[in-house]
Amino acid sequence: MEIQIPFEITLWMLLASFAKIGFHVYHKITIWVPESCLLISIGLIVGAIMHSVHETPPAVLTSNVFFLYMLPPIVLDSGYFMPTRPFFENIGTVLWFAVVGTLWNSIGIGMSLYAICQIEAFNVQDISLQENLLFAAIISAVDPVAVLNVFEDVSVNEQLYIVVFGECLFNDAVTVVLYNMFTFVAEMPTVQPVDVFLGVGRFFVVGLGGMGFGILFGFVAAFTTRFTSKVREIEPLFIFMYSYLAYLVAELFAISSIMAIVCCALTMKYYVEENVSQRSCTTIRHLVKMLGSISETLIFFFLGVVTITTEHEWNWGYILFTLLFAFLWRGLGILVLTQIINPFRTISFNMKDQFGLAYGGLRGAISFALAFTLPENIGRKQLFVTATIAIILFTVFLQGISIRPLIEFINVRRTNRNLDTINVEIHCRVMEHTMAGIEDLCGQWSHFYWKDKFMRFNNRILRRILIRDARAESSIVALYKKLELQNAIEVLDTVSGEISAAPSVISLQEEQKESSKQKMSLMTEDLKNMHKILSKNMYKIRQRTVAFTSKHALPNDSQPREILIRRHASIRRSLRPGSFQSTSQKYFSLPAGQSLGSKYPSSRLSHAGKLLKQILHTLPLGIT
Amino acid sequence: MEIQIPFEITLWMLLASFAKIGFHVYHKITIWVPESCLLISIGLIVGAIMHSVHETPPAVLTSNVFFLYMLPPIVLDSGYFMPTRPFFENIGTVLWFAVVGTLWNSIGIGMSLYAICQIEAFNVQDISLQENLLFAAIISAVDPVAVLNVFEDVSVNEQLYIVVFGECLFNDAVTVVLYNMFTFVAEMPTVQPVDVFLGVGRFFVVGLGGMGFGILFGFVAAFTTRFTSKVREIEPLFIFMYSYLAYLVAELFAISSIMAIVCCALTMKYYVEENVSQRSCTTIRHLVKMLGSISETLIFFFLGVVTITTEHEWNWGYILFTLLFAFLWRGLGILVLTQIINPFRTISFNMKDQFGLAYGGLRGAISFALAFTLPENIGRKQLFVTATIAIILFTVFLQGISIRPLIEFINVRRTNRNLDTINVEIHCRVMEHTMAGIEDLCGQWSHFYWKDKFMRFNNRILRRILIRDARAESSIVALYKKLELQNAIEVLDTVSGEISAAPSVISLQEEQKESSKQKMSLMTEDLKNMHKILSKNMYKIRQRTVAFTSKHALPNDSQPREILIRRHASIRRSLRPGSFQSTSQKYFSLPAGQSLGSKYPSSRLSHAGKLLKQILHTLPLGIT
Repeated sequence: MEIQIPFEITLWMLLASFAKIGFHVYHKITIWVPESCLLISIGLIVGAIMHSVHETPPAVLTSNVFFLYMLPPIVLDSGYFMPTRPFFENIGTVLWFAVVGTLWNSIGIGMSLYAICQIEAFNVQDISLQENLLFAAIISAVDPVAVLNVFEDVSVNEQLYIVVFGECLFNDAVTVVLYNMFTFVAEMPTVQPVDVFLGVGRFFVVGLGGMGFGILFGFVAAFTTRFTSKVREIEPLFIFMYSYLAYLVAELFAISSIMAIVCCALTMKYYVEENVSQRSCTTIRHLVKMLGSISETLIFFFLGVVTITTEHEWNWGYILFTLLFAFLWRGLGILVLTQIINPFRTISFNMKDQFGLAYGGLRGAISFALAFTLPENIGRKQLFVTATIAIILFTVFLQGISIRPLIEFINVRRTNRNLDTINVEIHCRVMEHTMAGIEDLCGQWSHFYWKDKFMRFNNRILRRILIRDARAESSIVALYKKLELQNAIEVLDTVSGEISAAPSVISLQEEQKESSKQKMSLMTEDLKNMHKILSKNMYKIRQRTVAFTSKHALPNDSQPREILIRRHASIRRSLRPGSFQSTSQKYFSLPAGQSLGSKYPSSRLSHAGKLLKQILHTLPLGIT
Repeated sequence: MEIQIPFEITLWMLLASFAKIGFHVYHKITIWVPESCLLISIGLIVGAIMHSVHETPPAVLTSNVFFLYMLPPIVLDSGYFMPTRPFFENIGTVLWFAVVGTLWNSIGIGMSLYAICQIEAFNVQDISLQENLLFAAIISAVDPVAVLNVFEDVSVNEQLYIVVFGECLFNDAVTVVLYNMFTFVAEMPTVQPVDVFLGVGRFFVVGLGGMGFGILFGFVAAFTTRFTSKVREIEPLFIFMYSYLAYLVAELFAISSIMAIVCCALTMKYYVEENVSQRSCTTIRHLVKMLGSISETLIFFFLGVVTITTEHEWNWGYILFTLLFAFLWRGLGILVLTQIINPFRTISFNMKDQFGLAYGGLRGAISFALAFTLPENIGRKQLFVTATIAIILFTVFLQGISIRPLIEFINVRRTNRNLDTINVEIHCRVMEHTMAGIEDLCGQWSHFYWKDKFMRFNNRILRRILIRDARAESSIVALYKKLELQNAIEVLDTVSGEISAAPSVISLQEEQKESSKQKMSLMTEDLKNMHKILSKNMYKIRQRTVAFTSKHALPNDSQPREILIRRHASIRRSLRPGSFQSTSQKYFSLPAGQSLGSKYPSSRLSHAGKLLKQILHTLPLGIT
């Protein structure tokens, strides 16, 4: 039996997991040195050991394995846990940096390196322009992992975070497309102008095609989970099968598979999570995170191993200039691109943000895998591999370790977002509603208008098709649901923690806990009340408004002005304090009122007493 | 890129999952026809379609794939969710049926078929005794899936259920061992008596070796999860890596890999579930179930496909006699073996139970895979494959469909076990404690004594090594924890269900739900109180007893009688009603008493009121 392959895979995974555990046992290391650095270091050690005993490098790691099995979980993870709202609010900037930035870097670095190649002293005249561009495309992909961890820890402002996040996600796609284009071009003897135009056209087909496939599979996945209420045990499987299928199908059609899986995850997420059971949802989230995390761990680990076990071709000139140009063009690119994009942004990037963006450009797994995938007929493949590994190690170690102190030192704008509170959510929604109305009035339709349109389309059509229990649900109710679930899980953890602690601890500690638990249960109670009040009232506003518009909008499409004024009035009317307060008080008086409150504990007491009697009755007292 | 393999696998899985969803959409089918039958039928249809378009059978299904990737999840599922207590209470019977029963069937069927082979009319004289025995071993493995589902639905008595469950689990191991032995023997020209003895010896080495490896890996897994509190996201991975590693290593050493993975799952389960977080625990359970379920689904599905796409050799005589002998020897075996085991059992098997055992002997996946693994140098391999498929289809369809009405008709003893209540648990524990004491006094040490010994060893040493938070925890506390978590999850589900229902439903329904929820929260409160009382008191008993024994046992090991009398006295003393009642009342009066109870709602009211005011304050009232 071919037992070796699964055996080897399991052992490598176990080794990588052990390393991960090890770092976190000594927690202080991971604060200052990113996990990726540590993993690469461990990989280097393991590689050195393997090299010294003349072991062959792990058969597991081929670029094939990387692209088919290790990349999809990582991208799925990023796509599934992408903060949707800030992402869509910054989508223009994200795409700008991802697409134009990557092109900028590829072409800039490629051209400069080609110029360097003309210098005879470096002895690399045989590298053609196409090959230089190909190499530049490889090292243009920016890796998010290490930087994002640091950004999260020091909580930089949301704009910066989401732009780096999005850039990393999409420039992988751009890089892979560029790579495919340039490998194709590199094998051509001459390049004609028409090829360039074809390339640009193909670029868009590949990107948009991937997006389309992803969205399609996302909808199919959501639709499938409508019918899984009887087969809960395999629910999570569908998420993985569909997103993987999206990836593979995109790969088959030679369109961007990364785009496909990201869009699939983004599309299906909300519908699926409402369709599946709570347990399935937890499992899906945990599993997505788990697979992504272990793939990432393995990649950095293998990077270390392969660095040692691969044969290198070292060329001081070429590699040093690669490092220099990568750094230079990245910085220049950010500088130029932010100047162009800033006028279009509400919150523009300042100098410190630009530094964060430029300095956060670490290279990682994608570059590494692409370098190994280089076709054999490229003369200086070994040099390219060496240079790629050099730039990865350089950026991951030097920039990765120094970025935290630097960001803290120059004091980059910190986050302006706290925990999602109810007030924030309500304000946002009201403002958006109002903005959509104002925009409608002005005739200038920006993203508020489109969001409003999409939400209505979503509620009227998509949700009905894709969600089993297809009642429309406002995002506030969804937020409440989320908060409540979170709270319940926390309470659960506290309770179970207390139970296991209970037998051996003495009363003092316990009383403290007791009171904290009481407080928590009070909190839950309050939250529930607040939830009820808010969901009902907000709902009324929403439903009344929607009903109003739709009733009039359909027959009299020619009178938008009047409708808008009416709509505005209806929003105002429903937000008037009197109507709100009276309803809320009506709802509030029921669950927490005095009359019920005084009935409550006595009934509880009698019930508990009865149960206690039962217990005492059934204990084997006959023994004495 | 080798995209075909993952693509094909994903598509087959998706197809099988769709079939599973389909059955459950029309729920009525699955009550009368087992899922396995339906899956085979779908497989037959797909196979027929593939055959008609001259498609080759799925490349995915080789016996290699089966044993390396599809069997482990199924066995892990069975092992992980095995009902531990009834299993260990019936372990003698289980092993008796699994080991002796399988040997009985293999040898009986093999010999009889050899006799049939001597009849010239059937034209199968070329099949040797060794080959007949090998074939008999293949079709001796009993498959649990279909039968267990029926048993669960009609809730037959626990003894019957657990014996069938355990038999299925272990006779897989026995069958694989026999298979390996007989394939080895089948290639020998002659068999000498010494080979038989060697075979028997090997049989035990393989079985016990697998067990040993499994337990070892289980402990290592449990120990590893002590340190994963900082890397929660990869916790579930360890469970799968270790159990899979146990399986693979056992396979490498040619010992029973099924035993290894089952024992690994059994060993690590309790320790791991206490170490990992609640979310990880949910994920692990869901994932184990999911993987097991999809593997099972795929196997039955493929069985149908392969039935059509394989070339068959049909021999009426041989196949009909195989069916007859399989049925006959199974029935005879159960009859004889129960007669032998009954005197040793507290609750003996009656005629109806015997019928259930005999009729529940469906053949399934293991037989199927083993038949395909047959070495090519066996002359009549095709006949064996055909006969195996025939017996699988015959038993799965005929017996599988008819077992439910038959069991209900002859009215097999139903379950005598309700939901684990607290009372039952307390009674059991007290009885066990007492029994252990009595046995100690009598000097006759049965499983109560050994259980007590193991529990003490577990609490004193194993738990300290393997569990992060190593305070000893009685099984009652564990039960409470479980009940409470279950309850909390149920409450969660109700709450979230209610939230999504709230906006659109009218008050009447809601009030009903409200009251039911209140009842449920009361239940939780009671449960918590009861838990507190019980855990504290039971704990005292336990700890006092243990402390007492250990203090005296170490220096004066020569006076066991006195200690035992004292221990008995101490148990009696602590169980005296007076002492229990007083403490319990002391503890009870605090959380649910009148004084606190009257304080409770008012504070909650004021707190909630304050929060409401806050909300009203922050609403955008300024708009009007």
